[in-house]
Amino acid sequence: MKLFNPILLGLIVYCSATSATTTPDVGNSPWGKNDELGRLNMMTAEGRATLMANTDWQQVYDLAVDYYVGMPSWQAAGDPHYQFWMTHTPNGAIVDNVLQQGTAVNQHVSYSGSAFSMYTHTGTHIDALSHFGLNGKIYNHFSAVTHLGDKGWQKAGAETLPPIIARGVLVDIPASKSLTQLPDNYRISAEDIKTALAKQNTRVLNGDVVLIRTGRMRQFEQPSVYMNNAPGLGMSAAKYLAEEAGAMVLGADNLSFEAFPAEINGNYVPVHTYLLAQKGIPIIELAYLEELAKDKVYEFAFVAASLKLRGADASPFRPIAVPLTHSGE
Amino acid sequence: MKLFNPILLGLIVYCSATSATTTPDVGNSPWGKNDELGRLNMMTAEGRATLMANTDWQQVYDLAVDYYVGMPSWQAAGDPHYQFWMTHTPNGAIVDNVLQQGTAVNQHVSYSGSAFSMYTHTGTHIDALSHFGLNGKIYNHFSAVTHLGDKGWQKAGAETLPPIIARGVLVDIPASKSLTQLPDNYRISAEDIKTALAKQNTRVLNGDVVLIRTGRMRQFEQPSVYMNNAPGLGMSAAKYLAEEAGAMVLGADNLSFEAFPAEINGNYVPVHTYLLAQKGIPIIELAYLEELAKDKVYEFAFVAASLKLRGADASPFRPIAVPLTHSGE
Amino acid sequence: MKLFNPILLGLIVYCSATSATTTPDVGNSPWGKNDELGRLNMMTAEGRATLMANTDWQQVYDLAVDYYVGMPSWQAAGDPHYQFWMTHTPNGAIVDNVLQQGTAVNQHVSYSGSAFSMYTHTGTHIDALSHFGLNGKIYNHFSAVTHLGDKGWQKAGAETLPPIIARGVLVDIPASKSLTQLPDNYRISAEDIKTALAKQNTRVLNGDVVLIRTGRMRQFEQPSVYMNNAPGLGMSAAKYLAEEAGAMVLGADNLSFEAFPAEINGNYVPVHTYLLAQKGIPIIELAYLEELAKDKVYEFAFVAASLKLRGADASPFRPIAVPLTHSGE
Amino acid sequence: MKLFNPILLGLIVYCSATSATTTPDVGNSPWGKNDELGRLNMMTAEGRATLMANTDWQQVYDLAVDYYVGMPSWQAAGDPHYQFWMTHTPNGAIVDNVLQQGTAVNQHVSYSGSAFSMYTHTGTHIDALSHFGLNGKIYNHFSAVTHLGDKGWQKAGAETLPPIIARGVLVDIPASKSLTQLPDNYRISAEDIKTALAKQNTRVLNGDVVLIRTGRMRQFEQPSVYMNNAPGLGMSAAKYLAEEAGAMVLGADNLSFEAFPAEINGNYVPVHTYLLAQKGIPIIELAYLEELAKDKVYEFAFVAASLKLRGADASPFRPIAVPLTHSGE
Repeated sequence: MKLFNPILLGLIVYCSATSATTTPDVGNSPWGKNDELGRLNMMTAEGRATLMANTDWQQVYDLAVDYYVGMPSWQAAGDPHYQFWMTHTPNGAIVDNVLQQGTAVNQHVSYSGSAFSMYTHTGTHIDALSHFGLNGKIYNHFSAVTHLGDKGWQKAGAETLPPIIARGVLVDIPASKSLTQLPDNYRISAEDIKTALAKQNTRVLNGDVVLIRTGRMRQFEQPSVYMNNAPGLGMSAAKYLAEEAGAMVLGADNLSFEAFPAEINGNYVPVHTYLLAQKGIPIIELAYLEELAKDKVYEFAFVAASLKLRGADASPFRPIAVPLTHSGE
Repeated sequence: MKLFNPILLGLIVYCSATSATTTPDVGNSPWGKNDELGRLNMMTAEGRATLMANTDWQQVYDLAVDYYVGMPSWQAAGDPHYQFWMTHTPNGAIVDNVLQQGTAVNQHVSYSGSAFSMYTHTGTHIDALSHFGLNGKIYNHFSAVTHLGDKGWQKAGAETLPPIIARGVLVDIPASKSLTQLPDNYRISAEDIKTALAKQNTRVLNGDVVLIRTGRMRQFEQPSVYMNNAPGLGMSAAKYLAEEAGAMVLGADNLSFEAFPAEINGNYVPVHTYLLAQKGIPIIELAYLEELAKDKVYEFAFVAASLKLRGADASPFRPIAVPLTHSGE
Repeated sequence: MKLFNPILLGLIVYCSATSATTTPDVGNSPWGKNDELGRLNMMTAEGRATLMANTDWQQVYDLAVDYYVGMPSWQAAGDPHYQFWMTHTPNGAIVDNVLQQGTAVNQHVSYSGSAFSMYTHTGTHIDALSHFGLNGKIYNHFSAVTHLGDKGWQKAGAETLPPIIARGVLVDIPASKSLTQLPDNYRISAEDIKTALAKQNTRVLNGDVVLIRTGRMRQFEQPSVYMNNAPGLGMSAAKYLAEEAGAMVLGADNLSFEAFPAEINGNYVPVHTYLLAQKGIPIIELAYLEELAKDKVYEFAFVAASLKLRGADASPFRPIAVPLTHSGE
Repeated sequence: MKLFNPILLGLIVYCSATSATTTPDVGNSPWGKNDELGRLNMMTAEGRATLMANTDWQQVYDLAVDYYVGMPSWQAAGDPHYQFWMTHTPNGAIVDNVLQQGTAVNQHVSYSGSAFSMYTHTGTHIDALSHFGLNGKIYNHFSAVTHLGDKGWQKAGAETLPPIIARGVLVDIPASKSLTQLPDNYRISAEDIKTALAKQNTRVLNGDVVLIRTGRMRQFEQPSVYMNNAPGLGMSAAKYLAEEAGAMVLGADNLSFEAFPAEINGNYVPVHTYLLAQKGIPIIELAYLEELAKDKVYEFAFVAASLKLRGADASPFRPIAVPLTHSGE
C-alpha cells in the first residue's frame, strides 16, 4: 500500500481501526496512470467482431425497466426521486400562447413537451468508476480534491464510458436453488455463483459482462418491497467473478447490487469499493433479467450505450441482449 | 377530412383561414385503431436478423453527443436547460454524515452521487409520435383530453418505443454540395436528398432510418451558434422520404430537424406534424454524424434503445452505427 | 346553483350520485365577477393601520418551519420532495474554473451557490384559491380549460396574493383538552373551536387569520410521523369559522389542514373545496405555532408575504406574529 | 492578518500577486467566535419596538418581484433558471386518477398542484454570509472543508437568518442625478451615495437596511436587458456605507449588487467579499424600489423574513416597507 501524502493527511485524517498496512486503497490501472476506464479496456475490435458474428437477432431482449413517477430508487441518503412533468400540452399551449402563434394555430398544432429529473443511479444504469473511491481517491488515484468539480468528475465521468458490446452471461441464482426469487437480504456467495454456472452449463470468459439474477425484479412495480432488504452479492462472489473468472462488468437485477449490511467493518459498501475502486469494474444495477431467465438464455451478446453525462458517476441506459448462435467460447 | 365532434367544437374552436376541407388531420394507422407505434411496426424479426447478419462490428460509430451544463437545447418556449449536480461528494459525506457512518468510515469510503434534469428533447434523442399532434389529437386519433395526464401520455409514450434496430442511411447534404456544412437557415429539398443519394450511390430502402447531415454539429460546443438559424429539412424532402422512399424513421444532426420559418401558413412546425401526426414517423434530433460522414459510411446498421420514460413525448438515447459487409439491398 | 353549460357537459360529464341540485359548485365572489382574491379583499388600509398601531414589536414570533432534504411534504400523489443542492463550492470552483478566473483567484474568492426545488405546498405555505376547484372551475368561475396554461393559472395565481397583514388568532385545541397534542386522525369540530376560544377568552373577529393548533408540529423532524394520520379540521369547524366567525384566512400546523378520510361522499378534500372554491378563503398549512402556544399569545398581528410565483396554486412564506397591546377588538 | 495554516497551504496554495500582508482575509465577528450572523446582531428588541411604534401601515410597499419562467437570473456560471410546472391539473387528474378516486370524483374535485426550482439567488433575495468567502473560509473563519456538506453550509446557512425588522433607507441615485435610471455599467461611488442622501435630506443610521436604487428594475420584464451590463455599487460606496454609515444590510434593485468588471485585481466580486466575508453584512438583490422612489419614501420600516432553507447561501423573500410617522432618528 502506498503511503499517504503527509500534507493531505492534514485534511483527510484517515484513522483505520485496524493497522494501516491492511487498509485497502484504490487500485492502479494496468492500462497506465492516465487510464480512466479500468476493465472496459478489455474490449477489442477483434473480440467484438468475432462475438457479434455469432449473434442471431431474430429475438432481442430488452434489459431495462420503465421510468415512472413513484418508481423505486436509492432514497436512503436523500437523493432525488424520479420526476417527470409536462412543459407543453395542447390545451396549455392555447392558454399560454408562449410561442405567440395565436389561438387558431395553437388549436391546430397540438404541442406536447416534457421534462424529467433523477438521481443518476435511477432505473437500469451503470455505475462509473467514480461512484465509489477510497481515501479521497477513485480508481487509478484520481483525487476528489483535484478532479471533482461542481459539475462532476473531470476523470472517469460517465461520458468516458464507451458503448459496451461484449459477451454477456446470466447467472440465475434462484433457478439453481429451485426458487422463484432469493429471500430478503440473501447474500450470494462464490459457491452460489459456481453452482449456478455449473447447473446452467455456462462458463464465464475473460472480459464478460456477468449479470446476476436475484429475482427481485418481480417486485419492481411495488417500490417499497423492491427497495427494502433486497438480496445481493457478497464479497466472495465479487472476488470470484473479478479475480478468477475475469469479468469485465458485473451487474444484477436489484437496487444496489450488493447485500446489506456490509460484511466488513469500516466500509458500508465493500463490494462497490472493491469492484469500482480496487478492480476498475463498473457495476450495472436494476437490470431486467426476467425474460432471459424464462427463456434460459444464459449466454448472449450484451449491447448497451449509456448517456454521456459529463462528470457523472453513473448513467442510465437500455441494454439489449442478443442470443448467440453458439456459446462464444 | 373527418368532421369535428360538434361537442368538442365548443372547446376547441378550430377556425381555419383556409377551407376546412384542406386542413390536415392526424393519420390513421394502417396497423389498426389501437396502434401506438406507427411506422416502427415495419421492423420484423426476419428483417432484423438478415440485416444484422451483414454487419462488421470491428468499428462501431457513436452517434450521440455529450450532456453538459450549458449545452444547446430547445429554449425558445421556456423549457428546462440541462442541469447536473452532485448529491454526494467524498468531503461532503464527511461533513454531512448522512448515512451516519461516522468520520473514519466516511473518510475511507469516498462517495460520489449526482443527479440531472432536462427537457426530454435534449441531446441526441427521438421524438415519440405524441410530441406533435393536430387538432387536439396525436397520430391514430388519441386525444389529449382523454389520454394526456399530468404524468404524460397514456398512449404513444416513449416507453412504447421498442429498441430500433434497422438499416440506416446517412445523407450528407453539404458533402454533395462540396460544403463543410450548410448555411444558416438552409431548407433542404427533395432534390437535395435525391442528388446527395445519387452522388453517394446510396439507396433508401423501405423501413430505413434515414439520417440527414447538415453539418451543424460542428458547432455543438458553441451553443448559441448551434441553436440559432440552423439549416433543416423542408416539406418536400420530408414528403419524398416518407412517401416515395418509405423511410421508417427520419433524423438529422441539428436541434429541431426542420428548417424555420415554416413554409405553411397556420402551422409553425409543419414537418414535425406531417411526420409525427400524419405519417407516424418518429424523428431523431441532434444525431452526431461527423465520423460517419468523414469515413463515408452511408449505409449501416442502426442500433438504438431509448430510455423508457413513461408518458414522455421524447427520450434520449445513444445510437450506434455498425458498418455493413454489403449494402443491405 | 347555476346550470352547467351544456357544451362543457360533453367533456366534463359530472354525474352526481345525488341529485344535481345538491351538488356544490364554486362560489361567486361578492367582490365582482373579475375578482381573484376572495376574502383577502377584507383587508383595508384603515383596518390595517388601526391594528398595527396596537402592536408591540419587542418580541416577534416566527411561524415558519425550516426547509431540509428529507422534510415532510405531500407525497401521496407523486409530488416532488424538497431538494437542495450546491451549484458552486469553494473547492469545486477551483477545479471547474467555470468563470475562467484561474486557480489563484478561485482559491482566494470562495464561491458558494445553491439551488432548490419543491412542490409549492412544501413547508409553511398558503394555498391560493386556484389549488382546488369544483367541476373544472375555481372560485368565481374561472375555468381550467380557459385559464390554466402550462405555466399555471392565469387567474388567482399566487402572484396575486397581497402581503397579508391582519389580526391573527391562535386556537389551541389540545390545550383546551389538556393534551400536548391531538391524537392521530382527530377531526376538529365546531364545538372544539368554540370551547377552545371560550377557554382562551379569545374572540374571532371579521377578517381574522385563524390558526388552529393540533400540536402535530412537535413531530416535524420525524417526517413519517408528521405526515401520516394527522389530526385536522372537520367540515363543521370550517363552516363555523367561515360563516359564523367571518374568518378571512384559515390555517393550521399540520400537513393538509383537514382531517382524513373525508366526511363527504364524492369529495376527498371537502374542507379544501369548501374554503377555497366555495368561500374564497385561502388556507395556511404547516404553520409553526408552538411558541405562540407556549406563551399563550392568542391574539396578534399576522404579517406575511408569500413569494409571487406566477400562476402557482400555493406559495411558501415565513409569517411572523406580533403581540397586540390590547385585543384588537 | 492571520497566518495561513501551513498544512492547508499544501492544498490551497494561495499565491497573491501582491505581498501576503495585504491579502484580505475573512473578518472576525465582534459577536464572538461562534457567531454566524454578523451585523444582523445589531437588531435589538428595544430598537425594533421603538422603530415600529413610529410606523403608519395605511400604505405598505411590496419590494419583491414576480417569479416567472424566463425571468432574469444569474446565468453566467450555469446556474438553474427559474422553472415552474404543473404537477396536477383538473383534466390530468381525471386521466391519471392518481389518487384512485374514480372519474366522477375527479371531475367534481378540480385539483391543481405545481412545483418550482431555482438558483437560491433568483428574484428578490438576500445573500447569506456563506455566499462568498475568502481563502476557503467564510466570515468568522468557518471553513468549507469542515463545514460545507453536500446539503449546504452547517454554519451561516440561510436558516440562521432571523426576520429582518429594521429601519430602512432608500438611496435614489438616478433621481439625485436627474436621470430615470443609471447608464449601463455605472459604478456608484461613495460620493454618489453622500450626494443622494444630502439631496433627499436622509441620514443613514447605525443598523439600517440601506437600499440603493439604480433604476435597472424598469427592465425587469426584458430579461436580457436587465441582466447585462447593469450599473452597481463600487468599493468606495460599499466601504462608506459599511464603515462610516454603519449599515446592517445593503441592497439594490439590480441582479448582482456590485458593478462589473471588478475594480481590484485578483477578485472578481470584491464588493461581495468585502461585505459578506470581511464585514458580515448580508446583501439584498433584485429589490423592487420603483414605488418607494416614485413616492419619495426614503425612510421606512423594513420587514422581511426569508425562507429558512437549511444550509443555503441565499434565500428568496418578499420584503415590505412601511412608512414612518417621523424619520426614526
